[in-house]
Amino acid sequence: MSTSRLLTDDPVVVASGARLLSEALAAQAVPVADTGFRPPMAGAEGDTAADLARVMADPRRAAANAEAVRRLLAVRPRLVDVRPAGEALGLRRGSFLHAGPPVGWERASGPLRGALMGAAVFEGLAESPEQAEAELRRGGADLEPCHHRGAVGPMAGVVSPSMWVFEVADAETGRRSWCSLNEGLGAVLRYGAYGPEVVERLRWMSEVLGPLLRDAVRAHGPLDLGAVLAQMLQMGDEGHNRNRSGTLMLLRALLPDLLTVGAPASDVAAAADFIGGNDHFFLNLAMPAAKLMADAARGVPGSTAVVAMARNGTDFGIQVSGCGDRWFTAPALTPEGLFLGSYGPEDANPDIGDSTITETCGLGGFAMAAAPAIVRFVGGDAGFALRTTRSMYEITLEENPAFQLPILDFRGAPTGIDVTRVVRSGILPQINTGMAGRVPGTGQVGAGLVTPPAECFTAAVAALALQAPEPSGAPAAG
Amino acid sequence: MSTSRLLTDDPVVVASGARLLSEALAAQAVPVADTGFRPPMAGAEGDTAADLARVMADPRRAAANAEAVRRLLAVRPRLVDVRPAGEALGLRRGSFLHAGPPVGWERASGPLRGALMGAAVFEGLAESPEQAEAELRRGGADLEPCHHRGAVGPMAGVVSPSMWVFEVADAETGRRSWCSLNEGLGAVLRYGAYGPEVVERLRWMSEVLGPLLRDAVRAHGPLDLGAVLAQMLQMGDEGHNRNRSGTLMLLRALLPDLLTVGAPASDVAAAADFIGGNDHFFLNLAMPAAKLMADAARGVPGSTAVVAMARNGTDFGIQVSGCGDRWFTAPALTPEGLFLGSYGPEDANPDIGDSTITETCGLGGFAMAAAPAIVRFVGGDAGFALRTTRSMYEITLEENPAFQLPILDFRGAPTGIDVTRVVRSGILPQINTGMAGRVPGTGQVGAGLVTPPAECFTAAVAALALQAPEPSGAPAAG
Repeated sequence: MSTSRLLTDDPVVVASGARLLSEALAAQAVPVADTGFRPPMAGAEGDTAADLARVMADPRRAAANAEAVRRLLAVRPRLVDVRPAGEALGLRRGSFLHAGPPVGWERASGPLRGALMGAAVFEGLAESPEQAEAELRRGGADLEPCHHRGAVGPMAGVVSPSMWVFEVADAETGRRSWCSLNEGLGAVLRYGAYGPEVVERLRWMSEVLGPLLRDAVRAHGPLDLGAVLAQMLQMGDEGHNRNRSGTLMLLRALLPDLLTVGAPASDVAAAADFIGGNDHFFLNLAMPAAKLMADAARGVPGSTAVVAMARNGTDFGIQVSGCGDRWFTAPALTPEGLFLGSYGPEDANPDIGDSTITETCGLGGFAMAAAPAIVRFVGGDAGFALRTTRSMYEITLEENPAFQLPILDFRGAPTGIDVTRVVRSGILPQINTGMAGRVPGTGQVGAGLVTPPAECFTAAVAALALQAPEPSGAPAAG
Repeated sequence: MSTSRLLTDDPVVVASGARLLSEALAAQAVPVADTGFRPPMAGAEGDTAADLARVMADPRRAAANAEAVRRLLAVRPRLVDVRPAGEALGLRRGSFLHAGPPVGWERASGPLRGALMGAAVFEGLAESPEQAEAELRRGGADLEPCHHRGAVGPMAGVVSPSMWVFEVADAETGRRSWCSLNEGLGAVLRYGAYGPEVVERLRWMSEVLGPLLRDAVRAHGPLDLGAVLAQMLQMGDEGHNRNRSGTLMLLRALLPDLLTVGAPASDVAAAADFIGGNDHFFLNLAMPAAKLMADAARGVPGSTAVVAMARNGTDFGIQVSGCGDRWFTAPALTPEGLFLGSYGPEDANPDIGDSTITETCGLGGFAMAAAPAIVRFVGGDAGFALRTTRSMYEITLEENPAFQLPILDFRGAPTGIDVTRVVRSGILPQINTGMAGRVPGTGQVGAGLVTPPAECFTAAVAALALQAPEPSGAPAAG
């Protein structure tokens, strides 16, 4: 405000912190603009305010975050191949990848256990889910997070050697990421179902769908996933729980090659039916595209940018650019939302899956303003979708110019979660997600909204504080 | 406001009409809610205010409009066939349909002349566009509006016997409507281009695309266009200048049948390429679906609902339910918007095409809130898209529960334009549209925003006033 306006305009009070002051002023008819300040989050242990001050004072922080986000935004993800997971990820018989941070059988959630049992039967390691369960309980399998192999998996995220995976590569650097093929909704492995129809579908996907997609993708050449994602945001998708237009654009792009690779017409028709009948098929391409973007931001010393958010159904974990491959975990919360059929809140497992890699890159819950129709799937209303995206700008470092949100006049999606902004503002990343049944074998029970537990972020800030250089003038510790 | 609130709350002045009062109050810091009232439109002839009062007093009006809209909303449009226009519409050699109200060669606009010249060459009636022009100038062809045969055509809307048309039927009543197949953008017949590549494309569409689509549609069985339109509004399309998701959903729906009707794989691949490469392909299905809906509302005595809005590039015409097949016309306005390449406003022809049948049914400009990305094609910003849809509720009779707009919390699209509301409010229907080059042969020059001329609506009100029963107590005229 210029001096002249200060003299001529009515004064307005800007209030921050406790509401007592602004309420007293408002009661006296004094205009008050409340900034909505909240004190920083209280950490589960240690002195979060001091940690935060230490990290905020780290002279490397601004440049490190700019570099992390620059790398993330420079990624050009392209679908380049479809391959068996064993070959693509170096997975051996008896090894299984899973979603989220590391977890063993003892602490594994119901849907993760169910998916492992189904995968063991699919791999021929057991003749029945019961036999598989006994085998898994006595430790007869190697479990490892997808993220540790450059991969991501939705919900339980179980990947076994005979499953096929999409291979996505960065056109700039050649780096790669992988994700399984989407099975559809309902009673499917990733939601913890393991019945005969689940295993049968996985067999068809490995024997027919995977090889056919491989031939079509190789004939097509690299398929620009960034361009598809950009279009999706203009077509009511947010890339996590709405992938309708993305799936249709994938089908359109691969169609000429599917028609001409010489596969039996019945296989092509079955594949087109399967893909066209599953509005979530593109999720498993949005995820490895986001994984490739997020991975580019890893390992920048001093950066407070989140490079992974993932859940195994028991724990929620995040990884931060300046903290290497360390996971900051806390018990996963349970989503609230809309339920299928007669299922209710008591049937829902806590939050599960690597699909939060989409939110890590400005998609999913962060881009809900572009996909207001999603509220019929996850709950809320159109205003909630708009408010959610707007509030995510408060905790992110950049607006992605490639992911434009038309309803916000083509503002770029809020991208690059900053743990210091989360802890300072108390605003947690908004995730929209499917909900798996708590009991192994159930499948999907609904979809809803959830956030990470705050402790992941305060723990990350504490770790960053330990690495931050001593503030100048203060004596060095130890 | 209850009596108690009247005593305790601060008074607020509601002002209507001339701004003088509200401005004076505002200058004295008195809160004023301005209702935005404007006096009714001045008619080109006659006493519009008296006509309006007479029509508003027509005791049949409310029930007649309810019936007209009830019929419109009850239509279930389904694609049932693809046929040659000659056969489907009873068109003979030397006959041409065109968009908009009736017009002869002398008053025909450049793009309509260009399209007629191209169609004459395509039909083998002339060997060159120049020869065709001479033939048409001397009256050697029958011209008739598409609307007079239950059909609609985008832009110039020229249909000749050898072109193929979509046939759409109402599942409730069996009534039918027709529309040509979409040629794509740029130098195409409907934008007035007539070069060899235009005629060549029309030949391929009649020899390959039409028969292939016929076979696929017949194998598929009736395809529910209402369901596709409902989905489109959740996927960033408004059904007039954005039909991206609609086109993809059509392709997905017909794909299994395209693959299995026994056509050569190269034809199927070419058709899939042509449809998949033209984001406007579904427009030519949105239009006959809307035509079928609007036609259902025709002929209700006393109804003030608009049942057609159409332009031939010279005149804009509307038809009203209570006025039979009479056209109310006035000179078409020229759209303002965004231009392709080096084209500018001086290259644009006045408003042209039957595609305003979409706005007549709550789609297009009326549903722009569902398609904010369209502003990059026609101009404006996201706020304009939202305001446009909101203001269209002011001039419509109903909200279509089948066409839900997610960003407005699934409010039904504003449907059933009421000429009395248009004249009372001074709010004209908002149309978004492609722009054809003024000079025959040019093709598309841009896309933009336009309204009908106000005179169409005042003339309709005058005609309705003549038909309205004498107000009780007044002496009968004549």
